[in-house]
Amino acid sequence: MASPDFTLSAGPVTVTARTLAALGKPILYHYDPEFLTAFERTQGKVAQVFRTTNDIVLMQGEAIVGLEGALRSLITPGMHVLNLVQGVFGKGTGYWITDFGAVLHEIEVGYDDAVSPAQVEAYLDLHPEIQMVCLVASETPSGTVTDVAAIGPLCRDRGILSYVDTVSGVLGMPWETDEWGLDLCVAGAQKCLGGPPGVALISVSQRAWDAMYANPAAPRDSYLSLIDWKEKWLGGRRFPYTPSVSDINGLESALDQALEEGVDAVVARHEDAAAVTRAGATAMGLTLWAKSETFASACVTSIRLPDDIDNVRVRDHAREVYGVMLSHGQGAGNLVRLSHMGPTAGGLYSIVGLAALGRTLVDLGMQLDVGAGLEQALAVLSTQRN
Amino acid sequence: MASPDFTLSAGPVTVTARTLAALGKPILYHYDPEFLTAFERTQGKVAQVFRTTNDIVLMQGEAIVGLEGALRSLITPGMHVLNLVQGVFGKGTGYWITDFGAVLHEIEVGYDDAVSPAQVEAYLDLHPEIQMVCLVASETPSGTVTDVAAIGPLCRDRGILSYVDTVSGVLGMPWETDEWGLDLCVAGAQKCLGGPPGVALISVSQRAWDAMYANPAAPRDSYLSLIDWKEKWLGGRRFPYTPSVSDINGLESALDQALEEGVDAVVARHEDAAAVTRAGATAMGLTLWAKSETFASACVTSIRLPDDIDNVRVRDHAREVYGVMLSHGQGAGNLVRLSHMGPTAGGLYSIVGLAALGRTLVDLGMQLDVGAGLEQALAVLSTQRN
Amino acid sequence: MASPDFTLSAGPVTVTARTLAALGKPILYHYDPEFLTAFERTQGKVAQVFRTTNDIVLMQGEAIVGLEGALRSLITPGMHVLNLVQGVFGKGTGYWITDFGAVLHEIEVGYDDAVSPAQVEAYLDLHPEIQMVCLVASETPSGTVTDVAAIGPLCRDRGILSYVDTVSGVLGMPWETDEWGLDLCVAGAQKCLGGPPGVALISVSQRAWDAMYANPAAPRDSYLSLIDWKEKWLGGRRFPYTPSVSDINGLESALDQALEEGVDAVVARHEDAAAVTRAGATAMGLTLWAKSETFASACVTSIRLPDDIDNVRVRDHAREVYGVMLSHGQGAGNLVRLSHMGPTAGGLYSIVGLAALGRTLVDLGMQLDVGAGLEQALAVLSTQRN
Amino acid sequence: MASPDFTLSAGPVTVTARTLAALGKPILYHYDPEFLTAFERTQGKVAQVFRTTNDIVLMQGEAIVGLEGALRSLITPGMHVLNLVQGVFGKGTGYWITDFGAVLHEIEVGYDDAVSPAQVEAYLDLHPEIQMVCLVASETPSGTVTDVAAIGPLCRDRGILSYVDTVSGVLGMPWETDEWGLDLCVAGAQKCLGGPPGVALISVSQRAWDAMYANPAAPRDSYLSLIDWKEKWLGGRRFPYTPSVSDINGLESALDQALEEGVDAVVARHEDAAAVTRAGATAMGLTLWAKSETFASACVTSIRLPDDIDNVRVRDHAREVYGVMLSHGQGAGNLVRLSHMGPTAGGLYSIVGLAALGRTLVDLGMQLDVGAGLEQALAVLSTQRN
Repeated sequence: MASPDFTLSAGPVTVTARTLAALGKPILYHYDPEFLTAFERTQGKVAQVFRTTNDIVLMQGEAIVGLEGALRSLITPGMHVLNLVQGVFGKGTGYWITDFGAVLHEIEVGYDDAVSPAQVEAYLDLHPEIQMVCLVASETPSGTVTDVAAIGPLCRDRGILSYVDTVSGVLGMPWETDEWGLDLCVAGAQKCLGGPPGVALISVSQRAWDAMYANPAAPRDSYLSLIDWKEKWLGGRRFPYTPSVSDINGLESALDQALEEGVDAVVARHEDAAAVTRAGATAMGLTLWAKSETFASACVTSIRLPDDIDNVRVRDHAREVYGVMLSHGQGAGNLVRLSHMGPTAGGLYSIVGLAALGRTLVDLGMQLDVGAGLEQALAVLSTQRN
Repeated sequence: MASPDFTLSAGPVTVTARTLAALGKPILYHYDPEFLTAFERTQGKVAQVFRTTNDIVLMQGEAIVGLEGALRSLITPGMHVLNLVQGVFGKGTGYWITDFGAVLHEIEVGYDDAVSPAQVEAYLDLHPEIQMVCLVASETPSGTVTDVAAIGPLCRDRGILSYVDTVSGVLGMPWETDEWGLDLCVAGAQKCLGGPPGVALISVSQRAWDAMYANPAAPRDSYLSLIDWKEKWLGGRRFPYTPSVSDINGLESALDQALEEGVDAVVARHEDAAAVTRAGATAMGLTLWAKSETFASACVTSIRLPDDIDNVRVRDHAREVYGVMLSHGQGAGNLVRLSHMGPTAGGLYSIVGLAALGRTLVDLGMQLDVGAGLEQALAVLSTQRN
Repeated sequence: MASPDFTLSAGPVTVTARTLAALGKPILYHYDPEFLTAFERTQGKVAQVFRTTNDIVLMQGEAIVGLEGALRSLITPGMHVLNLVQGVFGKGTGYWITDFGAVLHEIEVGYDDAVSPAQVEAYLDLHPEIQMVCLVASETPSGTVTDVAAIGPLCRDRGILSYVDTVSGVLGMPWETDEWGLDLCVAGAQKCLGGPPGVALISVSQRAWDAMYANPAAPRDSYLSLIDWKEKWLGGRRFPYTPSVSDINGLESALDQALEEGVDAVVARHEDAAAVTRAGATAMGLTLWAKSETFASACVTSIRLPDDIDNVRVRDHAREVYGVMLSHGQGAGNLVRLSHMGPTAGGLYSIVGLAALGRTLVDLGMQLDVGAGLEQALAVLSTQRN
Repeated sequence: MASPDFTLSAGPVTVTARTLAALGKPILYHYDPEFLTAFERTQGKVAQVFRTTNDIVLMQGEAIVGLEGALRSLITPGMHVLNLVQGVFGKGTGYWITDFGAVLHEIEVGYDDAVSPAQVEAYLDLHPEIQMVCLVASETPSGTVTDVAAIGPLCRDRGILSYVDTVSGVLGMPWETDEWGLDLCVAGAQKCLGGPPGVALISVSQRAWDAMYANPAAPRDSYLSLIDWKEKWLGGRRFPYTPSVSDINGLESALDQALEEGVDAVVARHEDAAAVTRAGATAMGLTLWAKSETFASACVTSIRLPDDIDNVRVRDHAREVYGVMLSHGQGAGNLVRLSHMGPTAGGLYSIVGLAALGRTLVDLGMQLDVGAGLEQALAVLSTQRN
């Protein structure tokens, strides 16, 4: 089984040769003074991307280690938590909230829809017992986003903690941690940043630290503990456990590239790629999954499939016949995803994705005007670039 | 701050250029069929190195994520556990055992000494309530080993579970998981294997799985859950979370190199390097930390320092002046460590370590015959190689 | 100036990550026994690709160093040489033939045409004084090929030496050095093989060696000398000068990949890519440069441009606006080239090239049905792959 | 045959991981605007290292392509040339001078000696017909240097052209192309610079260009032509042939590292390493090859061997038994070379070389005090660094 010509998946994404070279740099001892400096420098670069002055914690592991560690740290048994559900990750957060001992409140909409700020505001007005709001900024499996810019301040202004899963959100949408008053954000390195899939990027406000310290159930002396990182590393320059030197090297390189391009430019590149992809898909005769383009994600475009064409089969055909690795729906519905995330957001990568998907669906019996779709996508791209 | 010329640390260790190239390979989607195959193939190679037919679980994170996850999975509140302590990692295991709700029994000796099989046997005879024995095969911070070959069968024959921290043990000492009847072993990739510091390598016997399934406190739906890996990945080929594709690539390459060299040859190479190092250090006038060479580790040689020469200062001087990164004692005592672990175990790397340490100590005022030490080390090396 | 997203140039071509990793391998001393073995092994792999039992010489430098060295070695002042010209490289060979002191005979056709075996046969019948025929198997600047399979045996059967510039020919067309009786062939590593642009691959028949040894003007003690390689390296395992260790590493890796895929499969992949590209270009409304598809190259498709659209401007626009590096005509005419050479021969890379070129020409004012072209290209690709 | 642990050869040398990463960067089309810029930028960095405002030509191939091309370009048949011979490369230059049609004058001394400026001055006084002086700045095979700082100005002041083989000279000794009035210098990338062995670095003064243009025998339309580079590339931004993109990437990276460290610091590092090595070798009981330390090279220390110990056998034993690749004498005499060149010049690499050589010679029956040698080397190193 050879490698695909193109990986246009929803993360881990294709990373640049420069990032790969960084992953392959000689491995230093984690207490080598050069690595200690690199680790701190990397934290600072994450803060720039998050646009925050909050503490940054880099936990080793996929983003979920940060999501779980942070949620366990914040949830005091018995507290009231409002969870916003518009996709599979939001749904999963709710299970955790209950498991960790909180009283769960939920606003849930269809997975092709988005919870609105107005719904949140109304709920909070009715439920003053809510102490924390949990939300997923970007539901990668279905390609929809939540209006964090509006909901964040709603929480802050009421003194309610906010816990934000922005694994594929940061750099794939405008992001202002401090301006929006977000207390705890967890991003992944392997999504819009185009880094390696081995580090969770976490920003923690002072309010969030206070909540953790006040929480007797917060993990300590554990791989899941944020407090360990606060006390040992941020406080004492001792690592709670050996970090992955190569992952940090890869992460710093990806951050350098994003900062050199400019955070706003990276976001705009994702938005442009999404516009090209949506235009092409629609002109080809495909149906977008998201009910409205206003909350369609800029990092992944989900396409609704006819009932008789299974999404796994589509993904496998595109991979085997056209050499393009796409992502299927991961349980969110019968959809397939054209990702434009990280280095493959922009330019002709969208054409590659549209061509692979369009021709695959024709091969599988669907009636589509693939040529019209590609022509329209190129026309939009031409407008953006000329 | 430039990189050191030589990293002779106790892990993460210097890795080969081939391993670095693997870490820098293009990142595939984790559900790409090529990666799925690579992941399974890598598990099989870990099993070969462990010499086991048990299940292998590859958790993403430093080895400690596996140690914690496994111990939490195995400890049913109230169970009786015997913990063997001859170093800082064994001591830490004891704290966890208590935290996780078990009744702690301990045999503790000085950190320059080793718990003997006879002590364990005697304790088990007196305490039939013991359900699990925990031990650290190789105490990296102080450079001593435990006699797993004798203690493992003792446990097995009595139907007692064994939980073995072999983070720096596997490949640094003879290792027979199945022959010795070890139920749960956790190794690190970044030690004697010379891999990246981002994966925990875990072998789990059926008895250990049974114990976990019978344990209501075993983590589930958690980053720390071994049961998740058993059910989702081993059972259903779905990852419980996104693994680090690059770490797995690096790990497989390191395993390939070890298997091509031969597991026994890798162990012998570590033992040879240790013999050269100990001979050189002694001839130079240095004192070994370990009370007896019988339990001195083959992967790291700890040197006892005079009270007036601080181990951190020694490490920093060797790094700054001679470009060699050594490891200090990490709290185990006033010692410094000459590591010969992974690719730097063998040949003239021991001479580099001895020269850096010897001359550093002379610079700091100690009386040593560095020339005699290096000459003796070379003489031993010559005997091994000619 | 950022790197392009896609390099679809006519060489140096995009190389695989595996080849890049080989180029970045640690550099050994050229007399290290491991490198000596690798150098010889690489020669053997070149012979397999050339399908020959002749000697292989690997000169360090772009292919032209081999072309010049070989021609200087073969041309005895005053000898009669027939040169076939159907492009700029053939034209250049003629200048050299004269410079090096031979009597030049030429059959020349338009650069969008091919010299036929019948023309060669007729000429040789009329000119029994001809001692050597020179030809270019694949004229990269204009994308046409010569019928080496027919012309080679014509020469062999008459006892006439053949000198073949197959810089972009080998692996881009069926190739049988021995079966066709070719005396001297020079290929480049950076074309259809997908290797680095630093080695000339040369096969030399015994008849060619005899001619060189009989030639008082053949270079000796010179960078251009093939005889030096024969005597010092092939005869005595001493290098006439230090070879580029990294280029050889990269070359061997590219050869391994070609041999693993299979020489015939690599050629077929180029032919498929060319079929897709020609179909798409034609359906879009573009005009192929080659007068007939029978001699259109499989490694590069040249497109004839209208007089008012300059080929350099087309290339620059595709690079700047669409991130695709194409090649212009390099003096062969007002044409632009869609390359499908090496790793980018096959699959959706042709779609990328067609989309970039098609939309660029629309941007520059040409009337084209880009959608129809891409649709047709995908239809042909679907037929090839399903 | 595994790779050696250490390559301490006299070039190609061990290169840094950063240089290797550059060699493994994606290969761009040579007319990609980014590569055009990189090529020019690299020329500028070579000029900084040469300390010149002369034109820089980067020919693809080992340094010898530049040496031959330049000498052929400069030698007008019948001209009088004075060649300085103190080693095998100087001797070879003389053969070329004759071959290329000049009248050869030579000053030759033993290969463990150096031609003095006074000898040159006296010769030039007696022979006003001399139009060019040829010299080798650093005779790598025997480890001696020539006093270019004195001889260069001697030539300049008399209006005599100077042709300088400084393949291993630049960065291994103080170097002032302009201040010393050197007309043509050729350096290799794979020596003290620590770059790849595939590019010749050439500086050409206006006087040298004038001489070439006036020379009817100067190569044109040839791989060996410097005039082609002047006219096509320097004059018209067209490459005379495809350069090796990866070699240029590697070269630029090595230059960056040298310039970041500082040219003077790099030279000093080589001188320090040589001092450590000579001190250690002498204290061990070895005999330096060079008659006087005043002209012993800073990049390689040649050791005179007893007649009954063959230098090839020494080199092979050190490689096989101790994993260290040294260089033998390459015909210059029964000597072995401890190289300290490029990244392995400095720090404990000299200890590695001395230990490998010393113990090898003891294994082969020589009486040496290896310990005393290493102790003394470390003492000198300690003085340099503390």
